[in-house]
Amino acid sequence: MSQSTYTVQGMTCGHCVSSVTEEVGSIDGVQQVDVDLASGLVTVTSDRDLSEDDVRAAVTEAGYQLAS
Amino acid sequence: MSQSTYTVQGMTCGHCVSSVTEEVGSIDGVQQVDVDLASGLVTVTSDRDLSEDDVRAAVTEAGYQLAS
Repeated sequence: MSQSTYTVQGMTCGHCVSSVTEEVGSIDGVQQVDVDLASGLVTVTSDRDLSEDDVRAAVTEAGYQLAS
Repeated sequence: MSQSTYTVQGMTCGHCVSSVTEEVGSIDGVQQVDVDLASGLVTVTSDRDLSEDDVRAAVTEAGYQLAS
C-alpha cells in the first residue's frame, strides 16, 4: 500500500473536488482519493507506487493543475 | 415569450454554471438559460411567466442561492 499527497490548484467547489476524485480515482491501482478543498491537498492511496506523470495527467484531464 | 434575469450567489466555476443551468432549465416552460459566472446573472427565457418561487427552488436545488 502506498500513499502520496499532491497539491492541486484551481479547485473552487465541491464539483471540482468530485472531478478530481473521479479522474485520479480512475488511475490503475488507486484505491482511495481524499481531497481537501480549502488546502488543495489530494491524498492518494494505491496498491502500487504511482507515477507523478499519471497523477498529473489525471488532474489535467479533470481541468486543474498539479502544483509543481 | 418571457425573459427574466436573476442574480445567483455562490457560483464559483463552470460546474456550478452547469448545475444551475440544468436545474433552472428543468422548470416547465423554460426554453433557454444563460449564466454569467462573473456577475452571477442568470437570464431565463421561457414561454410563460415564471414564478420566482419556482426559480428560487431550482437554484436552491442546484446548491446555490437566489439573491433576495
